Amino acid sequence: MATPTWTRRHVLSLDDFSAEEYNIVLQTASSFREVLSRRLKKVPALQGLLVANLFFEPSTRTRSSFELAAKRLSADTLNFAPATSSLTKGETILDTAKTYVAMGTDMMVIRHQQAGVPQAIAMEMDRLEARVGILNAGDGQHEHPSQALLDLFTICSILDPDRPALDLLKGKKIAIVGDILHSRVARSNIWSLTASGAQVHLAGPPTLCPMLFAEMGADRPGPLFLHWTVEPALQDADFVITLRLQKERMEQNLLPSLREYHQLFGITRARLKLCKPDVKVLHPGPVNRGVEIASDLMDDPEFSLISQQVTSGVAVRMALLYLMGGGKI
Amino acid sequence: MATPTWTRRHVLSLDDFSAEEYNIVLQTASSFREVLSRRLKKVPALQGLLVANLFFEPSTRTRSSFELAAKRLSADTLNFAPATSSLTKGETILDTAKTYVAMGTDMMVIRHQQAGVPQAIAMEMDRLEARVGILNAGDGQHEHPSQALLDLFTICSILDPDRPALDLLKGKKIAIVGDILHSRVARSNIWSLTASGAQVHLAGPPTLCPMLFAEMGADRPGPLFLHWTVEPALQDADFVITLRLQKERMEQNLLPSLREYHQLFGITRARLKLCKPDVKVLHPGPVNRGVEIASDLMDDPEFSLISQQVTSGVAVRMALLYLMGGGKI
Amino acid sequence: MATPTWTRRHVLSLDDFSAEEYNIVLQTASSFREVLSRRLKKVPALQGLLVANLFFEPSTRTRSSFELAAKRLSADTLNFAPATSSLTKGETILDTAKTYVAMGTDMMVIRHQQAGVPQAIAMEMDRLEARVGILNAGDGQHEHPSQALLDLFTICSILDPDRPALDLLKGKKIAIVGDILHSRVARSNIWSLTASGAQVHLAGPPTLCPMLFAEMGADRPGPLFLHWTVEPALQDADFVITLRLQKERMEQNLLPSLREYHQLFGITRARLKLCKPDVKVLHPGPVNRGVEIASDLMDDPEFSLISQQVTSGVAVRMALLYLMGGGKI
Repeated sequence: MATPTWTRRHVLSLDDFSAEEYNIVLQTASSFREVLSRRLKKVPALQGLLVANLFFEPSTRTRSSFELAAKRLSADTLNFAPATSSLTKGETILDTAKTYVAMGTDMMVIRHQQAGVPQAIAMEMDRLEARVGILNAGDGQHEHPSQALLDLFTICSILDPDRPALDLLKGKKIAIVGDILHSRVARSNIWSLTASGAQVHLAGPPTLCPMLFAEMGADRPGPLFLHWTVEPALQDADFVITLRLQKERMEQNLLPSLREYHQLFGITRARLKLCKPDVKVLHPGPVNRGVEIASDLMDDPEFSLISQQVTSGVAVRMALLYLMGGGKI
Repeated sequence: MATPTWTRRHVLSLDDFSAEEYNIVLQTASSFREVLSRRLKKVPALQGLLVANLFFEPSTRTRSSFELAAKRLSADTLNFAPATSSLTKGETILDTAKTYVAMGTDMMVIRHQQAGVPQAIAMEMDRLEARVGILNAGDGQHEHPSQALLDLFTICSILDPDRPALDLLKGKKIAIVGDILHSRVARSNIWSLTASGAQVHLAGPPTLCPMLFAEMGADRPGPLFLHWTVEPALQDADFVITLRLQKERMEQNLLPSLREYHQLFGITRARLKLCKPDVKVLHPGPVNRGVEIASDLMDDPEFSLISQQVTSGVAVRMALLYLMGGGKI
Repeated sequence: MATPTWTRRHVLSLDDFSAEEYNIVLQTASSFREVLSRRLKKVPALQGLLVANLFFEPSTRTRSSFELAAKRLSADTLNFAPATSSLTKGETILDTAKTYVAMGTDMMVIRHQQAGVPQAIAMEMDRLEARVGILNAGDGQHEHPSQALLDLFTICSILDPDRPALDLLKGKKIAIVGDILHSRVARSNIWSLTASGAQVHLAGPPTLCPMLFAEMGADRPGPLFLHWTVEPALQDADFVITLRLQKERMEQNLLPSLREYHQLFGITRARLKLCKPDVKVLHPGPVNRGVEIASDLMDDPEFSLISQQVTSGVAVRMALLYLMGGGKI
């Protein structure tokens, strides 16, 4: 049997990721996790290559995580800061991206408040036959593939620390709780988790968890369920993914109050008793303590994987940049 | 015959650049272009040296280009961000510059909205006998030497890719079209192109292309002409340099409208028929598509050198930093 | 006698620094100053380690100085920019810090407008048994230890360039002049200078130099004096440390005017005649020329150590990061 190989130039969305691609990412991230456990946490894999971070939407953790991943692969990095940019001078986003490619960028990590911008840039770069890989670091409410991949890696590493692989999730019950509608993280998680054969249960208020999400489960290896109360989603769950609640949802009359949201959907120790005894809780951060999750629960290493997610993020992003940069697995 | 040597500590302006200096820059940039075509695009030339980018005026492309040039020479870089700076605390610009020198800066790349600031800093540094090189990355409406040098390198590389040299331009006709008055790029281009022996034709509305520019052609190897319509400048031109039009020029009543400007001075396929058949078009970027240049023309690799200019920019800035940093040619 | 060893994980405050610790810092900084005098100013000491600069309050010089110190030790660096951060999304400062630790940060340099933030973060990190060192880069009006250590190193290097050590200051008279009340630099300087056995004289207007500061001298090797006029502090002084005057102090009615402040407390050539003939003047920067210090005096290398302070800053911060990072002395 042939060794699996990575052929994807861009990572824009997980909707068409194959099981083999998930496993290549998990396996590569696993070897980088080993590198990150050493004192000297660098490898020369991407030396002389250039990673440009184009973050049109502000971010601390994702930008830092990608920047660090690139540096630990010995790549050079450039950060694009929209506030001090030519965008205020009327340049189009495509022209900005082309400028970075013309400078010699090998991989471009793009975050934008509008869905589809990374895809549009990738299509234009392919049309121009530019040798650049585009990585979607979050586009509007569409997708955030590296976040879902780090969630997947974190979960699989709990199930088998030495050999994280997609099929470990088969038959596991995973709840995704909160503002599904506005969450690019939820969309990417739904693609990866239903691909694994897990049972995925979405739960949120009807305004934030509309029926149309059920369609995302069609023809996927794992089934997808929707709930407008949290309890059926938590019942016997192996993992609970909580989502960030944007405070502006209240102003949009999608929510009565943060306090009521917490009472109905907040993850607390009491609610976790519905789950499997060894349930683990994830959150993509940044967390509104006491809203999506009880503050003490967030800090409890018995249940919370939030810190491991951040650590996994560097390894997973190293894996993505490495694979896109032509690294051998 | 002795090998030419680089003796200039600062690069502030092109008005007194010698033919030998232009040729050293072109030749050095040419060898760095070869480095940039490799997979590992770095050389250890400036390892351990420090390049500080002091951009008092916002910029994407120029700051990134210099930062990348420094990194590809293995220098360390520091970026000064005015928004988060001591300037808000009342420190003078000279004191800010002195602080960076006292930290050990070897080369300082300075952009400022006021003409003369890089010169003033360079003079003060020389007076203090500080071992630092100052590179003007654009000062007000005065000069932008690295942009003009990358334009020169781009043009000469079209004429002879293997041996870009100043005398290739002798007798060529080059049009510079647009807002000459407010353009530091135009001023630097006029110095470099008239030094080469090219025929330089300026064209723009009378409000943006005043007669006094004719004086810049006095006693230069190549002649300088002024036009208030675009056609005579384009007639049989080998190269057309279009300039960015600042939208605020309309509010200042220097222009009736962007649409009228495009009708009278915009570069279109129809207008290019006046030029030599193999004419090439340059633009320093960022471009207002459909104002200075027709959008489809900008993207046509048969005519547009805009992408090559960006690529050349890294090689030319590597050359400047390398030469200023004491690199051997 | 055993070689002294560095055991401090965090550098938060100087109030409990031992003489041995001061001497280790001075001696380590001295060897890094030698490194910084070479053409290749880098050492591989912290290769593969990560230094995160979390500057919740804007700063040019301190952030650049720490970033450069880290780079010259070959560490990787991440800069946290509050304007583009998750703080606007409601994340707590402790959670931001934990995120950087989870990413693999080895040393965290923190500046915050509120006193006590670096300490709070350090305590939480210790509670979590995180292997990270916290360095206070200025917290409110509390402390700025690296500034006081670079002042100490600058002063000791004047007294003995080859062997800067704490006991060189014994019996020396040092004046600290200006807005003592609001100055974190003054507080840290008081701890280091009274530890050395120097005579420390504070001088400032009563509103900015309240009696309670006298308590900081209790049980310290060197005595502490307070004055509401500048002359007794300057009389026979060996060193004068001037402090930055925040212009907002006038709006708070703590000062009549900058002009009157300069007349009463500004350091001028005339006033320096009261001091020892070889007196030297320090200022932490950025300077309000003509307010705290006469403009020409600031630039006079016979008296001013301001430029040396900046240079010392890089060596001292390299020493702190190196020692905290487990480097051998």
